[in-house]
Amino acid sequence: MRESAVSTEQVIRRLDAGQQDFEQCLDALLDWESVSSAEVQRSVDDILDAVRRRGDAALIELTQRFDRLAVESMTQLTLGAARLEAAWQALPVEQREALTVAADRIRAYHEHQKPGSWSFEEADGTLLGQQVTPLDRVGVYVPGGKAAYPSSVLMNVIPAKVAGVADIVMVVPTPDGVVNDLVLAAARAAGVDRVFTIGGAQAVAALAFGTDTVPAVDKIVGPGNIYVATAKRAVFGRVGIDMIAGPSEILIISDGDTDPDWLAMDLFSQAEHDEDAQAILISWDDAHLAAVEESIARLLPTLERADIVRESLSRRGALIHVGSEAQAVALANRIAPEHLELSVAEPQRLAEQVRHAGAIFMGRYTAEALGDYCAGPNHVLPTSGTARFSSPLGVYDFQKRSSLIQCSPQGASTLGRTASVLARGESLTAHARSAESRIREE
Amino acid sequence: MRESAVSTEQVIRRLDAGQQDFEQCLDALLDWESVSSAEVQRSVDDILDAVRRRGDAALIELTQRFDRLAVESMTQLTLGAARLEAAWQALPVEQREALTVAADRIRAYHEHQKPGSWSFEEADGTLLGQQVTPLDRVGVYVPGGKAAYPSSVLMNVIPAKVAGVADIVMVVPTPDGVVNDLVLAAARAAGVDRVFTIGGAQAVAALAFGTDTVPAVDKIVGPGNIYVATAKRAVFGRVGIDMIAGPSEILIISDGDTDPDWLAMDLFSQAEHDEDAQAILISWDDAHLAAVEESIARLLPTLERADIVRESLSRRGALIHVGSEAQAVALANRIAPEHLELSVAEPQRLAEQVRHAGAIFMGRYTAEALGDYCAGPNHVLPTSGTARFSSPLGVYDFQKRSSLIQCSPQGASTLGRTASVLARGESLTAHARSAESRIREE
Repeated sequence: MRESAVSTEQVIRRLDAGQQDFEQCLDALLDWESVSSAEVQRSVDDILDAVRRRGDAALIELTQRFDRLAVESMTQLTLGAARLEAAWQALPVEQREALTVAADRIRAYHEHQKPGSWSFEEADGTLLGQQVTPLDRVGVYVPGGKAAYPSSVLMNVIPAKVAGVADIVMVVPTPDGVVNDLVLAAARAAGVDRVFTIGGAQAVAALAFGTDTVPAVDKIVGPGNIYVATAKRAVFGRVGIDMIAGPSEILIISDGDTDPDWLAMDLFSQAEHDEDAQAILISWDDAHLAAVEESIARLLPTLERADIVRESLSRRGALIHVGSEAQAVALANRIAPEHLELSVAEPQRLAEQVRHAGAIFMGRYTAEALGDYCAGPNHVLPTSGTARFSSPLGVYDFQKRSSLIQCSPQGASTLGRTASVLARGESLTAHARSAESRIREE
Repeated sequence: MRESAVSTEQVIRRLDAGQQDFEQCLDALLDWESVSSAEVQRSVDDILDAVRRRGDAALIELTQRFDRLAVESMTQLTLGAARLEAAWQALPVEQREALTVAADRIRAYHEHQKPGSWSFEEADGTLLGQQVTPLDRVGVYVPGGKAAYPSSVLMNVIPAKVAGVADIVMVVPTPDGVVNDLVLAAARAAGVDRVFTIGGAQAVAALAFGTDTVPAVDKIVGPGNIYVATAKRAVFGRVGIDMIAGPSEILIISDGDTDPDWLAMDLFSQAEHDEDAQAILISWDDAHLAAVEESIARLLPTLERADIVRESLSRRGALIHVGSEAQAVALANRIAPEHLELSVAEPQRLAEQVRHAGAIFMGRYTAEALGDYCAGPNHVLPTSGTARFSSPLGVYDFQKRSSLIQCSPQGASTLGRTASVLARGESLTAHARSAESRIREE
């Protein structure tokens, strides 16, 4: 009796785009807001202030306290190239090879993102253009503990390297002294040569303000917990930061012809991240949705992380029936998912209609997991609908542009007349006179 | 006696890169930190909350209070295309022509920034690429009152138009009912078709959350006072925002052969913005610096905004003597100025050595004021040293990218093996099984 109740239990909700309260249900499903409590905010402010004022001394104290380490100097919190090389050499060959393949493919893809500087000359000899230069120094935050992902090291460091960033400083906490050798090996594979074993808001503070040991960087990237996210938001403006990531999500559109077991596993691969992860499948084929639901129920108990997956699917997952392919695409654009799998016969036709998505996985063979590790594109993607206005982490995040303007004497004279009229319209008469000084009498 | 004291009064400080305390002097000179007081923060939080909860009703109340307007409905706070057209038609021909020239040149320059989507196919048939799409809807904040600049309307709106943004919503407060017709005309010239006469944190809230009347946008750009900046920072993440701008700055490197009166006027054109603006001239020619100082003293009294200029130059301006051209360039890279004028014989050679600058004005004829209005490049530029990691506002700020991955059956099989090893290394076994499900037996 009890077992039967368990096996027919609903793991994941079913929705129909035609049901009356669909909009409200969808809003509730997608609702996510990351708010730092006043307590977190205060704590982060104190930490930032301490590191800013007292540098290394504060960094050591905070690391003693939060990571429970008996360290007394920054030397004990610094790993050099030799330590990274040792971690690399200690890996099983299979892992070394996989990291190498992944790093090479990520590098090759990101090379395509490199923009060039450009300029053009106008008829009167005036030159206009744009000069692209790399950031000088970048800080990469890598979480410690259970969420330590070597793939994230590759994804954050390699685009910076391709962009031409000369100096990359990695920080990774080692709570209770636990060092993740796979993370250090990935750092070596990505070309990092300096790692500080610090974390939390104190690591962000060190990277933003600099200390005697940790150099101040120009931009901080990489995921972290709420303290790290709050600290990054606080130092934004002094340094650049990447997007603040919410929980990871996948949206799959299936035409009904993909193996339901494959789709169940694709949904699981998202849901296993954590209890807040979101996995949604959309189809216009009701029997197919039922088949995937059956696969989910059957395969879920075989997962190592079954508890997390069950929690995530029941809280934030959904199988959604829509009336048509067009409705499925419209829903995807409304959701602006981090990962969009188009498990359909003609994925390119659909992809052209997608306005908002972090990454689009096209066709039945393209499991999102391939993109997470080694397909080449970045796995740092905009979450929580922010694909409406932001992009995957890329080479462009580690470069900036300077406008170039070189007026010929004739160009300065012609432009000076227009500038003068507009400047006087704004009552900025020194602007006007500066422009007018270069006007020649004809 | 008194007059003589005034005429020999030092308007702008002189520094020498060789003096012992130069580093400290420079740090003090550049020091700028925009901090929202707790009071501003609280006030902004309240405003955001009110507009989020009560929409148009709160917007009307707040506009009554802060802009002293006796309005009772959003209709009274909405300007349509006809009103913009009327403003345009009412302008003197000279201003209409100048706005047209400027808009055309800004459009032409920004067309060069448009990136294309791209993709490539690998040997096994796997396709990788990047799809570029515009944001759906953008909000442009335009300050009201004395700092209402029609040129800013062009600079913020045109890149969005070039990017392909379908819907642009402009907001501009009209405190005490004062409407700036030149701003409305610029909106018409730039292609805006809807303007709400709201401002402050309440306008930012309306754009971020949406109300019955004001549609929620995907990104908010445009300058504003401390309330606007604080509100933008608070909604960052829900919507995209542009950089939060500090005071405007110019750094000029002169080789000594540019007319000192021209350089004085270029410095004035920056200093006249406001008392916090920064104008610095660097040269290795001491006599030249003295000549510019003399020009400053002589010309300053002839300026309409002499009081602001005097205050700005004395507080934040400097004439800096350096030992060499190389030292001048190193200093520019250290400062990472918003505007960099290279008033030298061979500006291109120097520009290639510039790593950090918002815009580079090359040669004696290229007054910064030309770039402010009509040269073509954007005048929204990174301030306060943020050119180290950020770029001029551009078409790229109004587009985003989606990664494209389409694995062939063979590609999925090959990549699946690598992904499986890495996923198992991270203990993400559902990821591994999702990838493995696509591996074919060879």
